[in-house]
Amino acid sequence: MENFVRINGGRLIRNLNELAQFGQNEDGGIDRVVASEADAEARKWIIKTWQDATGLTARIDPIANIWMESAGTEDLSPIVIGSHHDAVPDGGKYDGAMGVMIAGEIMQTVIENGIRTRHPIGIVSFTGEEPNPFRLSTIGSKVVSGRLRYEDLKKAANRETGESLENAIARLGGDISRAEDARIYPGQVAAFLEAHNELGRQLDAADEALGSVGIITGIYREEISFHGEANHAGTTQMCDRHDAAAAMSEMILAVERAAAEFSRPDVTATVGYVKIMPNEANIIAGEAKLMVDIRTSEDSALSAILQKIAEAARKTAESRGIGIERTVLLHQEAKRLDDTVVNVIEGSVPDMKPQFRHMVSMAGHDAENMSLLTRAGMLFVRSIGGKGHCRQEYSREEDIIKAADVMLEAVLKLDKELG
Amino acid sequence: MENFVRINGGRLIRNLNELAQFGQNEDGGIDRVVASEADAEARKWIIKTWQDATGLTARIDPIANIWMESAGTEDLSPIVIGSHHDAVPDGGKYDGAMGVMIAGEIMQTVIENGIRTRHPIGIVSFTGEEPNPFRLSTIGSKVVSGRLRYEDLKKAANRETGESLENAIARLGGDISRAEDARIYPGQVAAFLEAHNELGRQLDAADEALGSVGIITGIYREEISFHGEANHAGTTQMCDRHDAAAAMSEMILAVERAAAEFSRPDVTATVGYVKIMPNEANIIAGEAKLMVDIRTSEDSALSAILQKIAEAARKTAESRGIGIERTVLLHQEAKRLDDTVVNVIEGSVPDMKPQFRHMVSMAGHDAENMSLLTRAGMLFVRSIGGKGHCRQEYSREEDIIKAADVMLEAVLKLDKELG
Repeated sequence: MENFVRINGGRLIRNLNELAQFGQNEDGGIDRVVASEADAEARKWIIKTWQDATGLTARIDPIANIWMESAGTEDLSPIVIGSHHDAVPDGGKYDGAMGVMIAGEIMQTVIENGIRTRHPIGIVSFTGEEPNPFRLSTIGSKVVSGRLRYEDLKKAANRETGESLENAIARLGGDISRAEDARIYPGQVAAFLEAHNELGRQLDAADEALGSVGIITGIYREEISFHGEANHAGTTQMCDRHDAAAAMSEMILAVERAAAEFSRPDVTATVGYVKIMPNEANIIAGEAKLMVDIRTSEDSALSAILQKIAEAARKTAESRGIGIERTVLLHQEAKRLDDTVVNVIEGSVPDMKPQFRHMVSMAGHDAENMSLLTRAGMLFVRSIGGKGHCRQEYSREEDIIKAADVMLEAVLKLDKELG
Repeated sequence: MENFVRINGGRLIRNLNELAQFGQNEDGGIDRVVASEADAEARKWIIKTWQDATGLTARIDPIANIWMESAGTEDLSPIVIGSHHDAVPDGGKYDGAMGVMIAGEIMQTVIENGIRTRHPIGIVSFTGEEPNPFRLSTIGSKVVSGRLRYEDLKKAANRETGESLENAIARLGGDISRAEDARIYPGQVAAFLEAHNELGRQLDAADEALGSVGIITGIYREEISFHGEANHAGTTQMCDRHDAAAAMSEMILAVERAAAEFSRPDVTATVGYVKIMPNEANIIAGEAKLMVDIRTSEDSALSAILQKIAEAARKTAESRGIGIERTVLLHQEAKRLDDTVVNVIEGSVPDMKPQFRHMVSMAGHDAENMSLLTRAGMLFVRSIGGKGHCRQEYSREEDIIKAADVMLEAVLKLDKELG
């Protein structure tokens, strides 16, 4: 590492731990889904903490993303750093929050050291990155990049409480009817950098603290519905059944098998959501549904898995007399990140092994949406045991501090390099 | 059929259809779970209808069963006829309700024809026969027979609303603190007869309208919990997973296979209830649970199925690194009904084929609990297509009317035969 100024590691870790108080449940997990009370409280704390630390004023955009920006010495677009502060149910304290706290720490370091940058430095905490009851994810960065518009937003409602997204965002200080005003167009941001825990175990398995992301996986999601026949669990003979739960079980195992055959870290398929009806111990399920999530950066792998799923669905439908419907929910192509930013990030990590210079991120991130409008890059921080999206996720303090220093160095290098 | 008086078929069908109005949903199914508003309304209607028809006064016992009794000419215990008027969610209009309306019709026929019986005739509609959010079934007849006591009842609460069963029963006019007063002891009832739709397709397959039940199946229920590891659906390699949903799926199929191998109408195994956590499309399930329902009148069949389940659980736990816990929820032995009553019922059905003289009931019924305290018998009415516990269940009017006449004849014969 060159002789750059360093961030304040103790302060960074204290802030990260303080943010983790918002929504922490009794098992130590974080319940801070978008628009929850914990989300609202966390936002107030982030705004106050950032403002107190920098003397700058935070800005809430129409989708309730939290922004702050320092002045640059030249008339250039800002270099932006950030992530998100919401969490999956019973999630961990690093996912998103770490990147947000690193952004704030970098801003504070730049300001308290009187560093004059050519570009303004921007920091951001995005709204609703994680899946949530509004059935939308990376909401904030999708609105910024134009992938979600007012027409889409106004239809969304919380599937548990029925609250409209419009109302939820208003509670957070936004206004979806002005979503267009949150848009950022190519040229308006010079670069976007996000630090995030890996959530996987590639870094940990190689005993490596940090990695630079070169590509973000494609994500394909579909819902499969099973239409069988609800009937009495005692009086319906085994041979007469059209059991939607059993049909669903065959598909869950077929999905798993189709991806497992690849034996590669960058090809996965998961059924994490199921529902059967009426869901009573003594009634054969008449209806069932599941959601399949397939991730790979290669189209050929996706096609092969989808073909296996189609075959399995045909067999199950035929042998069980069950109607099976498949609906594509999401088909998101893999996205390459920007070579300049990727190279600057990896160049700021001393002795980085080659295989971690262009990692495939197997999770979607706000950086993916930001890559549609600017040069984007990501720094991955080792997740111990590869755990992610669960309360057990953990990154070492020393790795987090190292990541913040690397991010600061990368930002200052880009500030020199970029026009 | 001997030259007995006949019931009024048109009136019986009209009453049955009227009762079906309470809780009927827009798809034509019946939502009349115990203690629901529809249950409460149906009760008022049953009491008024029975009282108007007979001039007798209904009595609500401490568990809110509805009773009515005519006088006999001798000092004997009553012969009781009845069933239940609650329904499974989105259930049919015959299950339970038909037996209740047949009981009322028989009482009315006896009274309006001035028939003097030696025994008092009793009719009853039991509380909460079906599974319900209080997690207790055949509540009314279990309290009457002493299988549920105040200690059990006071712990029960609605898993959806949190309302205590105590409060729910009070709303229906009962008082669980006096549950002991609802008990009926051997000798206090001379016989119990229940007419019920078969819910299965044995009668329909043989084109037979009615059957006499000789034995009620044993029911065994267990919960199986799977303890895996919640993790990110993209960043967790297929080989690193401990997917509770996939483990659950293997067990669902193993349970089904274990019963299907018997290829017999009187051996079933069903998984009708599942739950996975956190149940999000992009998170590998960390926890899952299911409920298994096994029905057979033969201990050897149950043992064989349980052995298959144990083997499958061991294999799944081992191959997936998943903790599996099994908890027995219910182990209810098969119950033989009373030979005298069974014979009188079958003797009242003209030309009954031998295989329908001692049918195995694959569903539990109030008659099962009543068999603990008196001679009990059941008459099954053909279910078209074998459908049960669903809005599609259907029994023909002519079969229902025939059943009511058979029940009346059986009651009058028993009135002569029994001491």
